[in-house]
Amino acid sequence: MLRLNALPPEIQDSVAETQRRVASLHKELTRNRLVVWTAGNVSERVPGSGNAGVPGLFVIKPSGVSYDALSPEVMVVCELDGNKINDGTADRLQPSSDTAAHAYVYRHMGEIGGVVHTHSTYATAWAARQEPIPCALTMMADEFGGDIPVGPFALIGDDSIGRGIVETLRHSRSPAVLMAQHGPFTIGPDAEAAVKAAVMCEDVARTIHIARQHDDVRRIDQELIDALYRRYQRAYGQRN
Amino acid sequence: MLRLNALPPEIQDSVAETQRRVASLHKELTRNRLVVWTAGNVSERVPGSGNAGVPGLFVIKPSGVSYDALSPEVMVVCELDGNKINDGTADRLQPSSDTAAHAYVYRHMGEIGGVVHTHSTYATAWAARQEPIPCALTMMADEFGGDIPVGPFALIGDDSIGRGIVETLRHSRSPAVLMAQHGPFTIGPDAEAAVKAAVMCEDVARTIHIARQHDDVRRIDQELIDALYRRYQRAYGQRN
Amino acid sequence: MLRLNALPPEIQDSVAETQRRVASLHKELTRNRLVVWTAGNVSERVPGSGNAGVPGLFVIKPSGVSYDALSPEVMVVCELDGNKINDGTADRLQPSSDTAAHAYVYRHMGEIGGVVHTHSTYATAWAARQEPIPCALTMMADEFGGDIPVGPFALIGDDSIGRGIVETLRHSRSPAVLMAQHGPFTIGPDAEAAVKAAVMCEDVARTIHIARQHDDVRRIDQELIDALYRRYQRAYGQRN
Amino acid sequence: MLRLNALPPEIQDSVAETQRRVASLHKELTRNRLVVWTAGNVSERVPGSGNAGVPGLFVIKPSGVSYDALSPEVMVVCELDGNKINDGTADRLQPSSDTAAHAYVYRHMGEIGGVVHTHSTYATAWAARQEPIPCALTMMADEFGGDIPVGPFALIGDDSIGRGIVETLRHSRSPAVLMAQHGPFTIGPDAEAAVKAAVMCEDVARTIHIARQHDDVRRIDQELIDALYRRYQRAYGQRN
Repeated sequence: MLRLNALPPEIQDSVAETQRRVASLHKELTRNRLVVWTAGNVSERVPGSGNAGVPGLFVIKPSGVSYDALSPEVMVVCELDGNKINDGTADRLQPSSDTAAHAYVYRHMGEIGGVVHTHSTYATAWAARQEPIPCALTMMADEFGGDIPVGPFALIGDDSIGRGIVETLRHSRSPAVLMAQHGPFTIGPDAEAAVKAAVMCEDVARTIHIARQHDDVRRIDQELIDALYRRYQRAYGQRN
Repeated sequence: MLRLNALPPEIQDSVAETQRRVASLHKELTRNRLVVWTAGNVSERVPGSGNAGVPGLFVIKPSGVSYDALSPEVMVVCELDGNKINDGTADRLQPSSDTAAHAYVYRHMGEIGGVVHTHSTYATAWAARQEPIPCALTMMADEFGGDIPVGPFALIGDDSIGRGIVETLRHSRSPAVLMAQHGPFTIGPDAEAAVKAAVMCEDVARTIHIARQHDDVRRIDQELIDALYRRYQRAYGQRN
Repeated sequence: MLRLNALPPEIQDSVAETQRRVASLHKELTRNRLVVWTAGNVSERVPGSGNAGVPGLFVIKPSGVSYDALSPEVMVVCELDGNKINDGTADRLQPSSDTAAHAYVYRHMGEIGGVVHTHSTYATAWAARQEPIPCALTMMADEFGGDIPVGPFALIGDDSIGRGIVETLRHSRSPAVLMAQHGPFTIGPDAEAAVKAAVMCEDVARTIHIARQHDDVRRIDQELIDALYRRYQRAYGQRN
Repeated sequence: MLRLNALPPEIQDSVAETQRRVASLHKELTRNRLVVWTAGNVSERVPGSGNAGVPGLFVIKPSGVSYDALSPEVMVVCELDGNKINDGTADRLQPSSDTAAHAYVYRHMGEIGGVVHTHSTYATAWAARQEPIPCALTMMADEFGGDIPVGPFALIGDDSIGRGIVETLRHSRSPAVLMAQHGPFTIGPDAEAAVKAAVMCEDVARTIHIARQHDDVRRIDQELIDALYRRYQRAYGQRN
């Protein structure tokens, strides 16, 4: 088992900072009411890992632990095969039961630095029907660049879920996939971006669900979606 | 009337710890918006009671008292016939008006250590229609192992509600029952597990209700439900 | 204009206590999400007023003031004709624009000590359709003793709203009326009871609305409603 | 670039006070759940600007900044062409990506002092269907004086959105417009009034949406709407 204290000091520091970020980002899941009890998780690839002889690492929520109890120290550090490393504490917690899916994404999508999984109500309702969310709002064109796609039905326990996520998102602009009869997974360059995608995914899932209750909504024309997506990705927020 | 201070000291300590747990778990009902005003309650069997000459005991919310006012000391201690014991305070509160139903469960299901009752919106809506919630989400297979069943219409005032709960759940994997035109009751090995079941019951009731607003949802195949349930019951969370 | 300091000292004390209760009960409107911005109000008859030469008095929210700014001192004291009294402060606020409706209730229903008005979402939705809420849940039988009735469409500005409330509720067990295309008014022996009725009214309005989205719900048989109502009114809560 | 410290001292003070108000009013967007993540903004015209040689100015949220981080100092000061001024800080933030729309309103509607944009769920659902909200509640007659109209579909990036807002609202009593497949914009004499309109717009959008789920709702007769609107605009709240 890989030992944390055998890694270069700058990687140990990077692990600790990642644990702080991941612990803190779980608060956004509860604040935005994307999760109940312990059913949702955030992970982030450790910056600097996966190079120069340091194996790829990511940090993820421990399994079944209440969101109130998520301090940085209890966040679990794993290698890209999904096995946790030895961080020197006697009482190491088990990582999330979704760890294999997160790990699969990190192994197969090198540009991805953050993964989030929730069972947020409206996104999961579309997933239950196995129906993609049509791109009918400008905000959805901005963030998702098109429809939010549905992934396959997959059982937990092997690579099925991870493979379903990667195969669905690899050729999509959407950072979100609705896994059939399960719930949304979102990805991003870092954990904060994946959390933002989870928040926005639930928001558009809810708004378009409600809009359709009284009449059909029409998808925005593809060329307008393209124009909105390109502008937003380039111009929104603060450029450093 | 049984006197608390006539019980062995270790049982008196166990009562006090149970009062603390039960008082604290009521906060989860309000936090998860499962209750309004005073309409919902948690109880827990006192560990160690029911053996060696000590009668079976459980702790339950007092009737009609605001959730803000629920300190451990006001939680009512009852015998398994539903009568409160004399805990030495002059101004003993009356237990929840649902006490008889909780007591019936403890008398007839020896392995059950916690019972929760709410009128949470979506679960109660299924109860109003007397329709079981179909197992259409992996999370529901994990926690409930199948559909959430409906219990009979029963009036308060005798053992009808308790008997309806026990007869419905005795041969079910589900820890939740939707009592017709009334609301959900949930059970578990302890009060925390019963509270978790109440939270999850409302969550799946809401998600599947919403999913069905735009099209039918399909039940997961029974063998897949079985596989999910077995894995979750065995592998989720931290094993001590 | 009646002067507060010309009233007997015990009535002045009773006014001050009523102001504290009414200010505090407005927090339940926001906590239970029954109101937005400034659109909802609580009033209470001043205990001891209306006897022995002291005119009848009630305390009500000032018009258009944010819920955050509701201290006891800003609560307005009115006579039963709806005119505010001179409480000795230079900068007296105007009472709620619904004051005439509250005053009408106090003048015509001597046993009523509290009135609440909100535009809570689901109750107002039934009011928009002018449809009574059918008594389809045991909790509704307990609290309302039957359906929640609809009152007439009435313009603000004279006694129309008050008269509509009184004529609808005078011969009903329900403490709530849905004023057509307007919203619910609730009454009770004191302001806390009227607030409880407002909270429960929204809760059953929401649950039965949602239940009906997938199928009809059936009204509970009248004799069972009667049994539930009588028991709840007699046995619920703590008897002093 | 205009420099803040080249303006008269009383205008500099007015800018600072406007920054405080605008920063604080964003808290109402989150408290009323009108926004998620960073997707919504408030602006206000600087009182005293636009006269006596001082150019017209307004204050608006910076782009992509979390609501938790909105202190008065980070609120961006712009001229009426939408360009930010030099306020003497080295690290000036970019204004909201909706700044051009706000600026267009201030240039073309001289009486307007505040603008708010959100993607609040129910208002945006009506906008997705491009359907005006019918005036079916007395509260809606009070605040909006009729239906809430739909504006055109418009791309971000030039004056299209601003022009759509102004052309729709110029001849309407409604302070809210639902921009097609985008979301609501609201206006008012100051920012607080525009925020109130955003809160009330979402509230009536939600209530009337829900009312219609079980049957049609009827529009209030125009003469009654007129009577309610005139009374509310004249008599509600505290007159100074």
